[in-house]
Amino acid sequence: MLRKVIDRITTPGKEGKKPGLLKPLRERAPQALGNLISERREQRAKTIGSVLKSIVTILIFGIAFLEILLVVNINITPILTSAGILGVAIGFGAQNLVKDFLAGMFMLLEDQYGVGDVVDLGPATGTVEAVALRTTTIRDTGGTVWYVRNGEILRVGNSSQGFAVAVVDLPLSYGANLAEATKVLERRVAEVADTEPLKTDITAKPEVLGVEKFTPENITLRVTVKTRPGRQWAVQRNLRAQLMPALEEAGFTAK
Amino acid sequence: MLRKVIDRITTPGKEGKKPGLLKPLRERAPQALGNLISERREQRAKTIGSVLKSIVTILIFGIAFLEILLVVNINITPILTSAGILGVAIGFGAQNLVKDFLAGMFMLLEDQYGVGDVVDLGPATGTVEAVALRTTTIRDTGGTVWYVRNGEILRVGNSSQGFAVAVVDLPLSYGANLAEATKVLERRVAEVADTEPLKTDITAKPEVLGVEKFTPENITLRVTVKTRPGRQWAVQRNLRAQLMPALEEAGFTAK
Amino acid sequence: MLRKVIDRITTPGKEGKKPGLLKPLRERAPQALGNLISERREQRAKTIGSVLKSIVTILIFGIAFLEILLVVNINITPILTSAGILGVAIGFGAQNLVKDFLAGMFMLLEDQYGVGDVVDLGPATGTVEAVALRTTTIRDTGGTVWYVRNGEILRVGNSSQGFAVAVVDLPLSYGANLAEATKVLERRVAEVADTEPLKTDITAKPEVLGVEKFTPENITLRVTVKTRPGRQWAVQRNLRAQLMPALEEAGFTAK
Amino acid sequence: MLRKVIDRITTPGKEGKKPGLLKPLRERAPQALGNLISERREQRAKTIGSVLKSIVTILIFGIAFLEILLVVNINITPILTSAGILGVAIGFGAQNLVKDFLAGMFMLLEDQYGVGDVVDLGPATGTVEAVALRTTTIRDTGGTVWYVRNGEILRVGNSSQGFAVAVVDLPLSYGANLAEATKVLERRVAEVADTEPLKTDITAKPEVLGVEKFTPENITLRVTVKTRPGRQWAVQRNLRAQLMPALEEAGFTAK
Amino acid sequence: MLRKVIDRITTPGKEGKKPGLLKPLRERAPQALGNLISERREQRAKTIGSVLKSIVTILIFGIAFLEILLVVNINITPILTSAGILGVAIGFGAQNLVKDFLAGMFMLLEDQYGVGDVVDLGPATGTVEAVALRTTTIRDTGGTVWYVRNGEILRVGNSSQGFAVAVVDLPLSYGANLAEATKVLERRVAEVADTEPLKTDITAKPEVLGVEKFTPENITLRVTVKTRPGRQWAVQRNLRAQLMPALEEAGFTAK
Amino acid sequence: MLRKVIDRITTPGKEGKKPGLLKPLRERAPQALGNLISERREQRAKTIGSVLKSIVTILIFGIAFLEILLVVNINITPILTSAGILGVAIGFGAQNLVKDFLAGMFMLLEDQYGVGDVVDLGPATGTVEAVALRTTTIRDTGGTVWYVRNGEILRVGNSSQGFAVAVVDLPLSYGANLAEATKVLERRVAEVADTEPLKTDITAKPEVLGVEKFTPENITLRVTVKTRPGRQWAVQRNLRAQLMPALEEAGFTAK
Amino acid sequence: MLRKVIDRITTPGKEGKKPGLLKPLRERAPQALGNLISERREQRAKTIGSVLKSIVTILIFGIAFLEILLVVNINITPILTSAGILGVAIGFGAQNLVKDFLAGMFMLLEDQYGVGDVVDLGPATGTVEAVALRTTTIRDTGGTVWYVRNGEILRVGNSSQGFAVAVVDLPLSYGANLAEATKVLERRVAEVADTEPLKTDITAKPEVLGVEKFTPENITLRVTVKTRPGRQWAVQRNLRAQLMPALEEAGFTAK
Repeated sequence: MLRKVIDRITTPGKEGKKPGLLKPLRERAPQALGNLISERREQRAKTIGSVLKSIVTILIFGIAFLEILLVVNINITPILTSAGILGVAIGFGAQNLVKDFLAGMFMLLEDQYGVGDVVDLGPATGTVEAVALRTTTIRDTGGTVWYVRNGEILRVGNSSQGFAVAVVDLPLSYGANLAEATKVLERRVAEVADTEPLKTDITAKPEVLGVEKFTPENITLRVTVKTRPGRQWAVQRNLRAQLMPALEEAGFTAK
Repeated sequence: MLRKVIDRITTPGKEGKKPGLLKPLRERAPQALGNLISERREQRAKTIGSVLKSIVTILIFGIAFLEILLVVNINITPILTSAGILGVAIGFGAQNLVKDFLAGMFMLLEDQYGVGDVVDLGPATGTVEAVALRTTTIRDTGGTVWYVRNGEILRVGNSSQGFAVAVVDLPLSYGANLAEATKVLERRVAEVADTEPLKTDITAKPEVLGVEKFTPENITLRVTVKTRPGRQWAVQRNLRAQLMPALEEAGFTAK
Repeated sequence: MLRKVIDRITTPGKEGKKPGLLKPLRERAPQALGNLISERREQRAKTIGSVLKSIVTILIFGIAFLEILLVVNINITPILTSAGILGVAIGFGAQNLVKDFLAGMFMLLEDQYGVGDVVDLGPATGTVEAVALRTTTIRDTGGTVWYVRNGEILRVGNSSQGFAVAVVDLPLSYGANLAEATKVLERRVAEVADTEPLKTDITAKPEVLGVEKFTPENITLRVTVKTRPGRQWAVQRNLRAQLMPALEEAGFTAK
Repeated sequence: MLRKVIDRITTPGKEGKKPGLLKPLRERAPQALGNLISERREQRAKTIGSVLKSIVTILIFGIAFLEILLVVNINITPILTSAGILGVAIGFGAQNLVKDFLAGMFMLLEDQYGVGDVVDLGPATGTVEAVALRTTTIRDTGGTVWYVRNGEILRVGNSSQGFAVAVVDLPLSYGANLAEATKVLERRVAEVADTEPLKTDITAKPEVLGVEKFTPENITLRVTVKTRPGRQWAVQRNLRAQLMPALEEAGFTAK
Repeated sequence: MLRKVIDRITTPGKEGKKPGLLKPLRERAPQALGNLISERREQRAKTIGSVLKSIVTILIFGIAFLEILLVVNINITPILTSAGILGVAIGFGAQNLVKDFLAGMFMLLEDQYGVGDVVDLGPATGTVEAVALRTTTIRDTGGTVWYVRNGEILRVGNSSQGFAVAVVDLPLSYGANLAEATKVLERRVAEVADTEPLKTDITAKPEVLGVEKFTPENITLRVTVKTRPGRQWAVQRNLRAQLMPALEEAGFTAK
Repeated sequence: MLRKVIDRITTPGKEGKKPGLLKPLRERAPQALGNLISERREQRAKTIGSVLKSIVTILIFGIAFLEILLVVNINITPILTSAGILGVAIGFGAQNLVKDFLAGMFMLLEDQYGVGDVVDLGPATGTVEAVALRTTTIRDTGGTVWYVRNGEILRVGNSSQGFAVAVVDLPLSYGANLAEATKVLERRVAEVADTEPLKTDITAKPEVLGVEKFTPENITLRVTVKTRPGRQWAVQRNLRAQLMPALEEAGFTAK
Repeated sequence: MLRKVIDRITTPGKEGKKPGLLKPLRERAPQALGNLISERREQRAKTIGSVLKSIVTILIFGIAFLEILLVVNINITPILTSAGILGVAIGFGAQNLVKDFLAGMFMLLEDQYGVGDVVDLGPATGTVEAVALRTTTIRDTGGTVWYVRNGEILRVGNSSQGFAVAVVDLPLSYGANLAEATKVLERRVAEVADTEPLKTDITAKPEVLGVEKFTPENITLRVTVKTRPGRQWAVQRNLRAQLMPALEEAGFTAK
């Protein structure tokens, strides 16, 4: 009888099957997320692997424990029944926990964000400091560290992936000469995009989109520029500081 | 006994039934969504097919695993009972996961959107980058990539289907001559719609709908134009830039 | 044994009972919704009928499958138990799906709206393009197509049923002569309602309801006109454009 | 065996018990809602009765169906088990349906509103057009028909029961002579209430309640009048049109 | 066998235990809610008693019905099993009903409000017209009757219990002499509180609390007076009408 | 057999175990909440004790009742099964009740507030009048009594514990001399804190924190003073009345 | 039989396994949270340890109790069944409790905050006074003590970890010379950061980020400074008081 128990305890040898299960993940990952540094992938694989191992260990110990009780010939029914009752009671309360872990698991698998990315998780926005199964840790612009439960993240906005777009809205008084203003902006934004420090950050020709909004008091012109990821805010600030004086010089007012 | 197990493992041959199940889907699809490029349809069918195959495989392995345990003559009751308890506990937590997958499945089947469409999913608005079973990935105008869980999408607004409408609201001061203003707008919008760059984007004669809103300070006139899908924003911006000067020239003010 | 299984598969012959079940529905429909074109009713009956047939088919195949397993003498308990566990897990996640289908079913049975109606479903407002069991498709004024899950529709506002009412609120400065203003409006609205293009749209004598709102700055007078369904917005716009100048001519100001 | 089944099918004779169950309801109704026209009560009783009959019929057929299967000696366990699994899955999704029906049932029993009443159901406000078990249909002032699910109605506001109160708030400039203004209003409102068309609508002496609100800019005086149900809005509009000029004549301003 | 059934039906004699259960309630009530008129208490006890009787009756009939079926020797298992399945399906939908009844039961036991009290139930505010197990009926100041489901009442605000406080906020211009203003108010409020009609309503010396709020434009002084329950609004209106002129006379302005 | 039943009924003697269970609570309480008056603790212990006694009594009577039925040899299965079905149905509805009681229990154990404390419970704010297991009764500044269900209290804000802080925000015009203003405030607040009536209420030296907010129109300076619990509002009002004139005297304006 | 019971009661000796389970936690903690004072870690370990001990004790007593009942040969089925029914009823209500405890457990394990940290828990913001399994106690700036249930904390914002950032937004009139203003700010902020009292609080060179916002009325310049944790608010206040006069001296206005 005990041997059977031991047999079971040795079955962790079966975990070799788990790494095998992880392999396709690793292989599939490159083609799906080819442009990701292998470092981060390695880290993710390790996190997921250790999680699966823990689950297997817990399951085996739990079953083994029940079998031992059976062997020692204790009436197991009341235990199981009360476990069932508790299971219902706890199941309801623990659903958030399970939700957090499952959400974290899938975020890792889908590699939605990594350490260093600037993300909007809903409950908080900032730079990712740590990605764990239950919580994600980010630091916002005020230096506050936010622990966000993964299950509370309904959608992830990642501003550090591939490229970014700096959007600058410029107010003009109602009735301003729009053709003229557009020309002024196009000339100035091209100049600015061609000189440092913005030159290295901007990856495509800036665009003056045109009239974005329209109220009885103001007209809003929008300018957009493609930038390197993470640099959009600096570019936005710089463009604001450069385009407004250009308009003012050309005689445009905001009100 | 083992043979029975093997028999079962070979039953994946039964999966041939699955492609069969997919066939009517493929056939029904054309007539329901006739104007869709077959490429996207093919891709959808493949995604759905692979999903069904995974489900079948998992089910068969799971049952086989239980049967093996039975054969090896281990008392299966405690396992099942604890599985039941865990099932309750996890069932509550995993409901979001199941919800996400089911929602994704049906979105795919109904082909609500495809890569490249501009959609409003609720939690985020932008251009679709990827459609998966659990999450949809979109990129907004600021370049931020949004991972939206399909189960969180309560309604989908797709702005790239069939046609679009550019809506331009123009403010006038209270007491303005509306008949005159309408005439000015009709003349100008017809001109604009007949010249490039708008000519190719506009698919129907523009309409001056009339007085949309009415406050003690302002009257708002609305102009609508049918456009090719995805071009409504450019047309809107262009029309705004063209119609306001026309009104101003004719002596109308906004305030 | 197999014969019994076959017997069961042939029971789809019993589906003849289903069309019978549908008959009272068809008969009850006319008296309840007498003014509905029989075309739409036919379509609804067909949709509902096909749904019921699918349900019956699935149920019979499912039971037959279980019976076959019994016949082949496989231990069915582990399958059922795990199905139960999965049932709980999936039941939670699938509740939205069931909710959507049931809501769609009842919407169809109650004929709350049909293709072409202008409806407010809550998550989106527009013209119905398609009515399905899980989702309703509508197109809003901006041309965006909205897929709304039926279970998310808590209430339906249908603006295309029977008749509609155009409501026009007119601002007057505080202290204006209300009796005079009412007279001016009554005269003008009667004129307008008697001339084309509004004559054909308006189905009842317009009413000047009186002072709707009252602030230290403004008085708001309300005029209502019964119109043909779907024409209320055009009538509203037209009335706004006609009544404001009438008041202005009579010397009233809005501020 | 079949006879037992038939016996059961004849038990609908037992439904005679149901009308009996309805009797106390009818008797209790008069004393509780004595001032309700017996017509509406009859209608309600009929609706409820037909509902109970349907439930009994469905239950008996369901049980009979199961008994037949037993008689034909089919193994009933897998059917019941899968029904249980489906029951869980559907139970979650159908809870809204059950909720709607139960809410409708109790609304009918408590006679919260009837056809023609002006009600505020939360999701929509208007005149009741139809009361059903699952949905209530109302038409708002804009002519839009609203289908509201009964389960979504958290509270009902019925403006057509017993009596109504017209509430008119009048703005005065800060520092106005309140005693004087109150006197002016009292005199005028008494006059108005004594002349047609308001005389027949007003059921009690109007009251000038006094200073309702108090800001650095304005004082708001409130006047309330008890009216016949459904007439409060007309009375309010009329009073507004009559009381403001009275104040103005007496030299009061709103700002 | 039948005798046992009859025995059971006669057990309603056991209901004598229920009134006994109610007795401690009645006894405990006086000490806890000593200042409540015994009339209302009697009424509550009756309501609760009748509820308990109904529950006992329903339970006994239900069990008796099942026992009869047993006696008649019908296979009871399928009935119970389907009842269980329906129980799950209905249990979810009926939870609101149970919630409403339980909430109503406890509100009655705790005597949170009675007919005639002015209460804020959350979904609606007004005077209680009827207290029932499922719903509470109140009538608001506009005469609208509100049926509020007891389960939707998250908190009850009862303004008719023991005493009430009239709170009057008076605006002063920034920089006003606060000591002087306080003195003026104290003198005037004492005068007013000592003369009819407020004398009988006010139960304690009025208090000038001091500066309640503070903006760059205004200072707000707060005066509070303890009044008889239900009279706070009349006192507030009267005080507002009396204190503002006093301040104005003393040379204070609001802006 | 009956003796066993009686035996059970006498087991309330076992309740002696419950007071024993309460003892550690009483002992642990002093060290954790040492500064609490023993009176309130005694009261809490009594409340909790009586609750536990009721639970034990109900449980024993319930089990005894079931055992009696067994002895009388009635088939207990249908009762239990229907109890199970009802248990599910009621369990869903009663969850709010259980939630309220559990929340109340833990609030009592953690002694979050007592009668007389000024608390913010979320749904209502005021002085605690009664603490019960299901509801907490508080009275707000307007004299309204609020019955708040304990389960609805997500967080408790207790303003009467240990100490309090009076926070006074003072507006200054943009561009004011901040160093000068700070000096004026520091001098004045020190004076005020040293004279009655504030001297006894203030427990620590006041602090002029500095510029709290910053708009194009105003600068807001914040002053904070530690006070005895419950006195913060009086101190705030007094400070506001004293500091504004000091600033004004020194020539500062708010706008 | 009794011996077995005693045996079980002695099994608390098995708890030695629990401290063993805690050891890896303690060891893992240093490397994960290396910069944490060992004091707080010790405290956490103690809290978690005592929790686990309580759980083990309760479980063993519960099982022992059931076994005793078995030994005394009482029919245990009705107890268990009613326990199951109650388990469902209570499980729903107790889910909040379980949720609170689990959330608290994980917060402790992840060491999201400790006593003295300034945290934003969502329902309340302030300084942590106590960390317990069910509730966290914090005190806000007004001295109010907040008891926040851990399960209600969806995300934690900790402002006392590692470092903090003081963010100062300065308004300028539209059209101001931004290059000049930036220079003035850079000079002044460098000066301020180099002199006491800010020198010790500021840990990195201050940065003038640039134009943060842009309205037709104002331009907002942002300055950020890295500070020691907990000092950001003092630094912010100080910088506001220092930078505004600098801008004013240089001739800039806010409006």
